[in-house]
Amino acid sequence: MTIIKIGGGEQINLEAIIEDLVNLEDEFIIVHGANALRDEIANKLHYEKKVLLSASGYSSVYSDSEALDIMMMSYAGLRNKRIVEMCQQVGINAIGLTGVDGKLIEGQRNKGIKIKEDGKLKIVRDFSGKPKTINIALLQLLISNGYVPVITVPIIDENNFAISSENDDIVALLKESLDADRIFQLIEAPGFLDDVNNPNSVVKVISKEEVKQRETQVDGRMKRKMKALTKLFESGKTSVYICDGRKNNPITNAINGEGTIIQ
Amino acid sequence: MTIIKIGGGEQINLEAIIEDLVNLEDEFIIVHGANALRDEIANKLHYEKKVLLSASGYSSVYSDSEALDIMMMSYAGLRNKRIVEMCQQVGINAIGLTGVDGKLIEGQRNKGIKIKEDGKLKIVRDFSGKPKTINIALLQLLISNGYVPVITVPIIDENNFAISSENDDIVALLKESLDADRIFQLIEAPGFLDDVNNPNSVVKVISKEEVKQRETQVDGRMKRKMKALTKLFESGKTSVYICDGRKNNPITNAINGEGTIIQ
Repeated sequence: MTIIKIGGGEQINLEAIIEDLVNLEDEFIIVHGANALRDEIANKLHYEKKVLLSASGYSSVYSDSEALDIMMMSYAGLRNKRIVEMCQQVGINAIGLTGVDGKLIEGQRNKGIKIKEDGKLKIVRDFSGKPKTINIALLQLLISNGYVPVITVPIIDENNFAISSENDDIVALLKESLDADRIFQLIEAPGFLDDVNNPNSVVKVISKEEVKQRETQVDGRMKRKMKALTKLFESGKTSVYICDGRKNNPITNAINGEGTIIQ
Repeated sequence: MTIIKIGGGEQINLEAIIEDLVNLEDEFIIVHGANALRDEIANKLHYEKKVLLSASGYSSVYSDSEALDIMMMSYAGLRNKRIVEMCQQVGINAIGLTGVDGKLIEGQRNKGIKIKEDGKLKIVRDFSGKPKTINIALLQLLISNGYVPVITVPIIDENNFAISSENDDIVALLKESLDADRIFQLIEAPGFLDDVNNPNSVVKVISKEEVKQRETQVDGRMKRKMKALTKLFESGKTSVYICDGRKNNPITNAINGEGTIIQ
């Protein structure tokens, strides 16, 4: 079983990725993002990201109901259905699903953020959380009948509310649940870069052990990405290919040694 | 088998409808619209409906690629996922699907409109068409495993392009394919009105034969609705309930004699 994770950056070449998928001999599922598209739509709708300052001084994004609406429009609506359409055009019988559909991905809602309001401590909960269980029966029902699931957020919480979640956590949980042996991560870079400012510094091979060390090498959003990668190697045998999602034949090229392989 | 058709008007009370669905003993599927939501989003995105004037003098809406994008955001994204979420909250294990997913609804793209440009006749094709076949195997796979399909546009054409389509035509095709014996139409009126301006003029019972006569009684959008109703009675035995989708317990009330029943 192979997992194809398509990033949501604006330079990602969806057509090229989908066209290349027909060359895969494995069974596969797709997990995709849409963050650039989400930001674009939010911007056009004049929706402003809400950021809360916690009592302990951390700032964090607050996913209110409207943020979920926009997630549904961009991830579950426009991006998901266009990917399914592209798949159908190359003969892949795709079905788009969020974690809410058939409770495909159940999660636990975040406990909330402590904030200070009028001098009083108050807990504010948004619609975000972490994926905990996969409805494997549904996935296998579809896969065994020849369908390719195309999965995206939102997921569903313990009280059946739609919540946002990190795609990296979803991929890690799917990998575990499906015992996937290969993950292709289509990103906006030629692979894992030794020097983030030098596109010619692609690291060809990274060992599982090395992933954890590399965490210290990076910061910001990339640090979270490395943490997510580390999680992928906690159990089972998995190869992760980090491929250039902006180029033609990105998956074939990755198999042939371009980009980064972690194993 | 029962089909629940939920209109896309802005007064439709989705929560009330979904809550009432738990009282149904039959197997059912849901087909929903989102036209008011679509118009609202299109408006916010400053998208202007394109209208073409045909060479023979008719004006018609031109569904370009952007119109499909907005359909995906509103119907397939926001409305579909919120309905699925509401279903999950009352214990209905819903799965949202468009006609593109698993090629659930294949259609035939409209041939195009003849227009005159610079004195020359030209045919312009948009992304719209008519549903022709249902992937019954997929529907039955889901239903027999306890899932409730929640279906909306777009559908997929003969060349695997996403196209728009009338929900009434989709319901008629689903009714035929699933041999459904009951259809509940949740609309923004107390039932079929003898006098469209008098909400107290609900016609309690209409016979199949009468539906065709009633077509002459109405005009505009309602005429198309009546035509669609006529189609539902072309074969098989079906009862159509026209219920007030703005009220509490609209389906239970319809079964108990409120609204209009056509049989």
